[in-house]
Amino acid sequence: MNQIHLQTVLATKAQRVVTAARDRPVVDFGARRIHGIDAALKAARAFYIGGVAATSNVLAGKKFGIPVMGTMAHSYIQAHQDEATAFRKFAQLYPDTVLLVDTYDTLDGVRKVIALAKTLGEDFKVKAVRLDSGDLLALSQEARRLLDEAGLSQVEIFASGGLDEKRITELLSAGAPLDGFGVGSSMGVSSDAPVLDIAYKLCEYAGQGRLKLSTGKPILPGRKQIYRMAENERDVGDVIARVDENFPGRAFLVPVMRQGKRLETGCVDLESIREYTQQQIARLPNHLCVITQAKSPYPVEVSQELSLFQKKVKEQVITS
Amino acid sequence: MNQIHLQTVLATKAQRVVTAARDRPVVDFGARRIHGIDAALKAARAFYIGGVAATSNVLAGKKFGIPVMGTMAHSYIQAHQDEATAFRKFAQLYPDTVLLVDTYDTLDGVRKVIALAKTLGEDFKVKAVRLDSGDLLALSQEARRLLDEAGLSQVEIFASGGLDEKRITELLSAGAPLDGFGVGSSMGVSSDAPVLDIAYKLCEYAGQGRLKLSTGKPILPGRKQIYRMAENERDVGDVIARVDENFPGRAFLVPVMRQGKRLETGCVDLESIREYTQQQIARLPNHLCVITQAKSPYPVEVSQELSLFQKKVKEQVITS
Repeated sequence: MNQIHLQTVLATKAQRVVTAARDRPVVDFGARRIHGIDAALKAARAFYIGGVAATSNVLAGKKFGIPVMGTMAHSYIQAHQDEATAFRKFAQLYPDTVLLVDTYDTLDGVRKVIALAKTLGEDFKVKAVRLDSGDLLALSQEARRLLDEAGLSQVEIFASGGLDEKRITELLSAGAPLDGFGVGSSMGVSSDAPVLDIAYKLCEYAGQGRLKLSTGKPILPGRKQIYRMAENERDVGDVIARVDENFPGRAFLVPVMRQGKRLETGCVDLESIREYTQQQIARLPNHLCVITQAKSPYPVEVSQELSLFQKKVKEQVITS
Repeated sequence: MNQIHLQTVLATKAQRVVTAARDRPVVDFGARRIHGIDAALKAARAFYIGGVAATSNVLAGKKFGIPVMGTMAHSYIQAHQDEATAFRKFAQLYPDTVLLVDTYDTLDGVRKVIALAKTLGEDFKVKAVRLDSGDLLALSQEARRLLDEAGLSQVEIFASGGLDEKRITELLSAGAPLDGFGVGSSMGVSSDAPVLDIAYKLCEYAGQGRLKLSTGKPILPGRKQIYRMAENERDVGDVIARVDENFPGRAFLVPVMRQGKRLETGCVDLESIREYTQQQIARLPNHLCVITQAKSPYPVEVSQELSLFQKKVKEQVITS
């Protein structure tokens, strides 16, 4: 339960951030503030399923095969006597890197990157600069202008620092020339919605349907199947039915274990999960693919037979 | 960093919940929705430091010596043909238990507990009933009345279900006769404040003070000491100073490692940490010990010498 909760909450949050970034890569920068080291590892997996391009979590990269992307740390720059030296040394070590330009003064940092490009000539392979503080809209516009004027239009601008899906939407809507985002704390703990109100509950025991009647916590008893209906390759609604009913649409639930053994359907690699997730999201009604609250929820119905069965089990419980 | 963040966020949240509960025990019910299994274990430790009385996380109990308290699960009741049988069987297994009464109808559940007490006579050792849904104020008042009328005033009422420090304050302020609380999701992820904006930053390198000038992210350079000043056994303010300065008050920072080896000051058992935490909180100004936003923050000053040093390092950085 704990793991399903974690993966669902964090993959959903990542999907929202990725949607806001409109095809620009989002990199997971969350590890330092995610709730625990193990959670940071599992979170990197969830974020990848949710659509992020890479993670700064090296162990997650190693363990799950997720692309790793780091930039440089402020401490590397601070450990040098001056910023220009730090940039030069780092670019020697990692030629196709992203240089962090906000340690002392963002635009001054950009000018030092331009100076480095002039010194290195054809050996200059730096891919991007990273802005991590201040007015990201104004700074990215001015940085873009400086880079373009210096003939460095191939150098991209990467932003980080307190970003989430709302802030990214604001920046891109205002025309910020940003090519990618590093998102940490807010995505790392799904800060606006860290908890999903889901639970496992007993719905059948010894072949008999079971439920609870606790206020506001209804249970549909017995084994079930979910049918998802589509029109023009877009999903339009689900029916929750008893397991032996038949409805049009795709049957969603498949067994993944039998008699304590994992079946082939339970062995899916991470790339396939990610691809499947992205395919399913692409099938959603347009009005749900928004960052703000959707105007209406996805339609889910309970079959008549299942409703009747719920009523029957309820009566058995009350009279027992 | 990750672990300090986790412990700080979650111990603080627990402290708020415990404060709201006004000397009634709070039990950690968070495991199922905390972000990861490892985080749930570390969280139980943080909650205990923050003042909770017990945890439902059995592994945390075993590993850290935290008292374990569980009640019964809805599934246990649902697995039986009727609730009265489930209560009777559970009380046979665990005589001094807490019976969960809201599976079908809370007050009807309380009446079944009363009937069980009549049947068992002196063998009835049930400590409490647990309400987990519905209108907890009205239900607790009515449950208390039923129990008292049956001569069961020793049976306590324990509440759970979507609780946090605000809800607990509301319930107790309205006079709900509740004797303890199980708090899960909201405390488990510190849902209103899952992230604390803290970071490690380089402030000295090779014996020289270092800082950043990034907008809105100031750094005080060099090694420091914190002095906490008190009046009448209550703390009134801190001074952050250079390490070799002297101020009145308690010096807060002590070395816990030297040359890669842990010192005796770095070996403190969990009970001592918990006790120390509670003592320090008891020393805080009254106006900070509230659940709502405090009217003014705890006063923290930077010493003149440290301010001058910061200015000097800043000038060195700008001219380099």
